[in-house]
Amino acid sequence: MTAPVSAETLDRLRHVATATLSTQLFKLGLRNTYLTGLRPASPGLRMVGEALTLRFVPAREDLATFENITRADYPQRAAIEGCGPGQVLVVEGRGIESAAIGGDIYLNRLKVRGAAGCIVDGCVRDFASIQALGLPVYARGAASPPHPARHLAVAWNVPVGCCEVLVMPGDIMVGDDDGVVCIPRHLADEVARTGADLDALEAFVLEKIRAGAPVPGTYPPDEKTRADYEAWRQRNK
Amino acid sequence: MTAPVSAETLDRLRHVATATLSTQLFKLGLRNTYLTGLRPASPGLRMVGEALTLRFVPAREDLATFENITRADYPQRAAIEGCGPGQVLVVEGRGIESAAIGGDIYLNRLKVRGAAGCIVDGCVRDFASIQALGLPVYARGAASPPHPARHLAVAWNVPVGCCEVLVMPGDIMVGDDDGVVCIPRHLADEVARTGADLDALEAFVLEKIRAGAPVPGTYPPDEKTRADYEAWRQRNK
Amino acid sequence: MTAPVSAETLDRLRHVATATLSTQLFKLGLRNTYLTGLRPASPGLRMVGEALTLRFVPAREDLATFENITRADYPQRAAIEGCGPGQVLVVEGRGIESAAIGGDIYLNRLKVRGAAGCIVDGCVRDFASIQALGLPVYARGAASPPHPARHLAVAWNVPVGCCEVLVMPGDIMVGDDDGVVCIPRHLADEVARTGADLDALEAFVLEKIRAGAPVPGTYPPDEKTRADYEAWRQRNK
Amino acid sequence: MTAPVSAETLDRLRHVATATLSTQLFKLGLRNTYLTGLRPASPGLRMVGEALTLRFVPAREDLATFENITRADYPQRAAIEGCGPGQVLVVEGRGIESAAIGGDIYLNRLKVRGAAGCIVDGCVRDFASIQALGLPVYARGAASPPHPARHLAVAWNVPVGCCEVLVMPGDIMVGDDDGVVCIPRHLADEVARTGADLDALEAFVLEKIRAGAPVPGTYPPDEKTRADYEAWRQRNK
Amino acid sequence: MTAPVSAETLDRLRHVATATLSTQLFKLGLRNTYLTGLRPASPGLRMVGEALTLRFVPAREDLATFENITRADYPQRAAIEGCGPGQVLVVEGRGIESAAIGGDIYLNRLKVRGAAGCIVDGCVRDFASIQALGLPVYARGAASPPHPARHLAVAWNVPVGCCEVLVMPGDIMVGDDDGVVCIPRHLADEVARTGADLDALEAFVLEKIRAGAPVPGTYPPDEKTRADYEAWRQRNK
Amino acid sequence: MTAPVSAETLDRLRHVATATLSTQLFKLGLRNTYLTGLRPASPGLRMVGEALTLRFVPAREDLATFENITRADYPQRAAIEGCGPGQVLVVEGRGIESAAIGGDIYLNRLKVRGAAGCIVDGCVRDFASIQALGLPVYARGAASPPHPARHLAVAWNVPVGCCEVLVMPGDIMVGDDDGVVCIPRHLADEVARTGADLDALEAFVLEKIRAGAPVPGTYPPDEKTRADYEAWRQRNK
Repeated sequence: MTAPVSAETLDRLRHVATATLSTQLFKLGLRNTYLTGLRPASPGLRMVGEALTLRFVPAREDLATFENITRADYPQRAAIEGCGPGQVLVVEGRGIESAAIGGDIYLNRLKVRGAAGCIVDGCVRDFASIQALGLPVYARGAASPPHPARHLAVAWNVPVGCCEVLVMPGDIMVGDDDGVVCIPRHLADEVARTGADLDALEAFVLEKIRAGAPVPGTYPPDEKTRADYEAWRQRNK
Repeated sequence: MTAPVSAETLDRLRHVATATLSTQLFKLGLRNTYLTGLRPASPGLRMVGEALTLRFVPAREDLATFENITRADYPQRAAIEGCGPGQVLVVEGRGIESAAIGGDIYLNRLKVRGAAGCIVDGCVRDFASIQALGLPVYARGAASPPHPARHLAVAWNVPVGCCEVLVMPGDIMVGDDDGVVCIPRHLADEVARTGADLDALEAFVLEKIRAGAPVPGTYPPDEKTRADYEAWRQRNK
Repeated sequence: MTAPVSAETLDRLRHVATATLSTQLFKLGLRNTYLTGLRPASPGLRMVGEALTLRFVPAREDLATFENITRADYPQRAAIEGCGPGQVLVVEGRGIESAAIGGDIYLNRLKVRGAAGCIVDGCVRDFASIQALGLPVYARGAASPPHPARHLAVAWNVPVGCCEVLVMPGDIMVGDDDGVVCIPRHLADEVARTGADLDALEAFVLEKIRAGAPVPGTYPPDEKTRADYEAWRQRNK
Repeated sequence: MTAPVSAETLDRLRHVATATLSTQLFKLGLRNTYLTGLRPASPGLRMVGEALTLRFVPAREDLATFENITRADYPQRAAIEGCGPGQVLVVEGRGIESAAIGGDIYLNRLKVRGAAGCIVDGCVRDFASIQALGLPVYARGAASPPHPARHLAVAWNVPVGCCEVLVMPGDIMVGDDDGVVCIPRHLADEVARTGADLDALEAFVLEKIRAGAPVPGTYPPDEKTRADYEAWRQRNK
Repeated sequence: MTAPVSAETLDRLRHVATATLSTQLFKLGLRNTYLTGLRPASPGLRMVGEALTLRFVPAREDLATFENITRADYPQRAAIEGCGPGQVLVVEGRGIESAAIGGDIYLNRLKVRGAAGCIVDGCVRDFASIQALGLPVYARGAASPPHPARHLAVAWNVPVGCCEVLVMPGDIMVGDDDGVVCIPRHLADEVARTGADLDALEAFVLEKIRAGAPVPGTYPPDEKTRADYEAWRQRNK
Repeated sequence: MTAPVSAETLDRLRHVATATLSTQLFKLGLRNTYLTGLRPASPGLRMVGEALTLRFVPAREDLATFENITRADYPQRAAIEGCGPGQVLVVEGRGIESAAIGGDIYLNRLKVRGAAGCIVDGCVRDFASIQALGLPVYARGAASPPHPARHLAVAWNVPVGCCEVLVMPGDIMVGDDDGVVCIPRHLADEVARTGADLDALEAFVLEKIRAGAPVPGTYPPDEKTRADYEAWRQRNK
C-alpha cells in the first residue's frame, strides 16, 4: 500500500464496468475477484476507492458486551474514525444475515469523512435511511439486530476475506449495479487502461448488434469490424 | 395472551424502529427475535400487531388434496376467517421457496377483516397484486405453485417457528423496511417505552453526526452529548 | 416438438397468471414445473414462448479458453444465432451466482432476433442495461465475471435442467412477476384453456372478497357463488 | 391411528428394504416419504414401529429455561414417558445441527420402555454411548449442546414435519442402512405385501446379474426371466 | 478419447495419492479437478479408470415413467451395458440426496462387466450391499427412493458436470480415501509421472518429519534434504 | 493467556463429556461454544489443550504462490513450528470443503512437537494416514487439493472464528466423539469442576434409568434421587 494509485487510474475506473474489469482480471489469471452475493443499497451509484478493512469474528457473550464495543479503540469505531477521503470500508462479516454490522449513524459518519463507499459481507440496519444517503453501500441486505448479537470486531487494516474474496488493505474496490470487484493494487493501472479500451469496443459492438449485426464477426470483432471500430473511434474522439 | 396490550404501547411501537427494538430485546437477554430472511412486499409500510399463528407441515399426496384443503375447518381457512382487527397472521412455512402459501384472495380477505399484516416464512403468489394492496406483507419472495404442492395446514393458534424464531400467539410483531421483530407479549410495554427513548436519542445523535461530530463521545453519548441531548429534547418537545 | 402450438393457445397464455398455470399443471399430476429461485429483471413484463435450450457445464481451464468460446459453433453462440422469433432461450446454469452467462450484447442480439425472452439458472451481467431492454429476462441476479470463469457451453437444443425443473426443447415457458412455469408442450392447449377459465373465476372471486365476502362459500365457489359467477360472466362478455 | 396394524404386516416390514418400500409408495403416487439427511447411529440394525411424534420449535430465552424443561408435563418428557412398546419416537428438530435434542439418558429410557427406535431431524449427544445401545437411532449426527440452546418442546402426538416429510402419529416408520421411510398407516398392509414380493424378485434378479445376465430382460424381468423366477420361487419356498 | 492411455500411466496412477495428483494439476493451472462432497462407500479401495459418463436431469411425471425408464435404450441402462473393462461410470446427479440413481443390481452388473468404479454426484440405494461389493463406489451417501422420483436419464457419453467439475468422456478418474480427482486425458501421462516422483519425495519427507525434522528445510526440501533424498532414493530402488 | 491453566483443571477436563461442558457453559450464559460441523478423524480419542490459532483467508493467484507458502515465516508454517506441547492448533478455514489445509506431513510434525490435537474448520488430506496417527484431529472431512487452491494463511495467534465460534488464543479446547467445545480460558476452572460433578450425577442417573426408573424424579433428581446419589457417591469414592 506504498505508492499512491494515480488520479488518472481512479478516474478511468469510474467509467469502466465491473463486468469489463473482471474480464480483464480473468485474462491476467485472477479468477476470484468478484464479491458474490452483495447487492447495491442504492442502484445507479458507482463506487471506486481504496480498501480500508475491518474484521469481525463470531460474538461471544463474555466479550461482545456493550462496554467493550463502545470503547474508542474498538476496531469497528477505530476503522470508521480512521477512514479517509476516497477510501472504501470493506467489512468481513462472514455472510451473516441475522444481524447488522452497523446502521445509519456509522454510515453517515463515513460519508462525512469522505469515504467512497462501504462493502459489508453481511447486513446493515436502517436500510431505508441508508438507501437515501448517497453513499455507495453494498451488503447482503437489511437486518435489525445490533452487531454484538452475532459479531465482535477484532482488527482493522488487515487482510480480510469478503464474500470469499481476499481483500488486502489498499486494493482498489470498484462497484456498479452488477456488484463489486476487488482489483489488486499492483494491477490497478493495467486493468484501468485495458478495461477502458475494452469498454469502448463493447459500446461500439453493442451499437452494431442493436442495428442487426450477428454475434459472429462482431464480437469478438473480426478484421472488418475492428477496422470499423477504429474508424468509429476516430469519429467519437 | 390474557391481558390486552395497551393502545399506548401499540402506538409507541408504530414509531420505533425494529433496529431499536431488537437492541432493547438483546439488552434484556433475548438474542433471537428477528425473523431473518424476509423482505417487505411493500417497502415503506410499517406493521404492528398481535400474532395469530398458522402452522404448515410438508404436504403428502394422500392428505393435501383439494377436497381437504377447501374444507371450512381447514386450518388455513379457519385462521384467515378467525383473524381479527389488528392481528398479524404469522405463518410457519419452513422457508420453502418453491410454492406459495396463498395469494391475493386470502390476503385481500385478511385486509377486509382488518388484519395488521401477514408474515410468511415462505412465499406468496400474485405478488404484484399484493404489493399494491396496502397491507404489510413480509415473505421470502414470490412463487407460483399452489400451497398443496409443498404444504399442508395442520393447526392455528399454536406456537410456531417462523424463520427460526419462536412466535407465541399474542406476541407483538413489528415490521419495517429492516424486517420483522417478535416481541414477547410480556415485554411489549417495556421495550416500547425504552425503545422510544432510544430512538429519540439516536435521532439527535444522527443530527450531530451529520453535522460532523465524531462517533466517540457522540454515540454512545458522553456526559456533554447527553446534556446537549436533554436540552435538544426540551426544545423539541 | 413436431406440431406447432396454436396462436390461440399462445395468446391465451399471455393472459393467464403463472399461479393459475401451475395450479392446473398440479391438478394434472405435474408437481415440478415452477423454476424456483429466479426473479424478473424487468418486473411488469410478461413472457410466453417456446423453449430453445442451452447447456453449460463447469468450466475447466484447458477448455474454457477465449479461443474456444468465441468460435462460431460454440454452443452459446450457436444457440443465440439459432434463436428464432417467439422463442425463449432457457439456460442451464447450475444456479451459479459468481459469474454471468452473458450480458447486454447477447441479450440485445436475442431481442433483435425476435426472442420472446431469456431464462437463466444463473446470473447475467450489465444488469442495468438489461433491465431497460424491454426483453423479459429471468435470472438469479447480476454478476460481473465472464462466463468462462465458471461455465463452458457444451450443447444446445437438448433437454436441460433449469432450477431443478426439466425443460425439453419446445416446451412452453410462461413468465410473470411470480416467476416462470414450464408447460410440457403436449399440455399447452389444455392448461391454456382451463387456466383462462380459472383466471376468470378468480377475478370474480377477488371482486367478491374485496366487497366483503368470506372465503368459505366464495372460494372455491359454492353453488350460489358459481351461479353469481355465471351471471357476472355473461355480463362481462 | 384407530385400527391396529397387524403383526403380520409389521413382521413383513421387518424384512423388506426401505428401497423397496419407497418404490412401492412411489408407484402409489407418494413421492415424499423418505427422510432425507439422516444416518443410522448403529448401522446394521433394522427398525419398524408406529410413530409417536414430538415437536420442537426454536428456543427463546424466556421460555426455554431449565425450570420449564424439567417439568413432568414438558412435552419432551411426556412423550418419552408416553412411548409404548413398539413405538418409534419421531422428533421434529428442524434440521438443527448445533444442539442435541437429547442424549443417552432419554434414549436409554426409551429402550427400557420398549421403543422400537428414535428418529431425530436434528442431533443427539452422547453419541458413542448411543451407538452401543442396541436401539435403532437415526439422526443428522452428534452435537454436544443441550436442547434449550436451540429448541423448545411444545407438543407431542401431533402431525410433524421431519426432514421435510409429513409424519402423522401412528404412521409406520421403517429404517435400515439406506435410511428411514414413513408409510402412511392406511397403506402399510399393501406396501408390506407388495414390497415383500418385489424384494423376493430382486433377490432372484441379483443372483442372475451376479451370474452374468445383462440388465435388459432381467430387470425388469421379461417373460422368460419371470418364468425362471417363478420356478426359482417354488424351489426356494 | 482417441489414443489409448498407456498401461504404464494407469499403473502409475494406481500408486499416486489423489492429494498429489491434485497438486500436480494445480501446478499446471487446473484448479477445479477435485469432486467435492463425495465419500467412498468402501474406504481402502483405490480406483483408476477412464470416464464413461451418464447424465440425469430433473424428473417430470410425464416422462420419468416406469415404462420409459425400463426401455433397453434408456440412457442409464445403455450406459451400464456399454461400460467396458477398466471404465468408471461417472454420473451427473446434480447433488440430489433425496433419491438414489441406482442400487446393487446396477452396480453388480457394472462389476461383472469389469468396470473400474462408479462415481455418483448423488446417492445410491442398497448401501450395505454395495459396501461389500469390492467395487470402488463414490457417492454423496445412501437414499432409498428410486431414481424416477427425482431423476431422468437423457444422455450418456457426453460431457458432464459432476460435483461442479467437468468430466469429459475418456478423462482419467482416480479415487482414494481423500476422494476423486478428474485428470484431463491429455495430461494423464504427465501427472502420473510427476505425481509418482512427488509421492516418493513426500514418503521420504514424512519419514524425516516422524524422526523429528522441522518443516522448514525438510518440506519443501532444501539442498541438503534433497541430497539426502537422492541418496535415500538410490538405496530404496 | 497470562496465568497457566492448572494441571488439575486440565486433568478434570479429560474426563468430562463435551455434552456436560456445553451444558455448564450454557448455564453461565454462553450459548455459542460448540463447533458445529466437525467430525473426529479418529473416534474414541479425547482431546484437551490450549488453543493456538491460525487464520486463513481466501486464496488469490498473485499471493497464494508456492514461493510464498513455503517461506519459513508463512503463518501456517510458523504456527506449526510454534506449537508447543499440550497445545491444540485451531484453524480458521471458513468451512471450505474443496481443498485441504494440510496433510500428514504437517500433522505428524504437530504430533512430534507434542500437540494435543488439531481442529480445522475445513478439510485435511491424507485422511487415512491421519486417522491412524493417534492425534485427535477434528475436521469437516477429507479433500485432496492443496491449500493454495482455496486458502492463504495470513496470521497466527490471533482471535479466530472456527465453525462460527470465537476462539481466543489460550482458550481451552475439549473434544470427544460428540465434537469440540471451546471453553473461554477464564471459565476453565469453573466448568471443569462443575462439569465433573454433573458427569458423576449423570452416570448415577443413567444407571437408575437403565434399571427402569422413569425420567421424572430421576433426571433432574428429586430429593430422594439426590439422597440416593449422595449415598452412591460415598460408596463409589
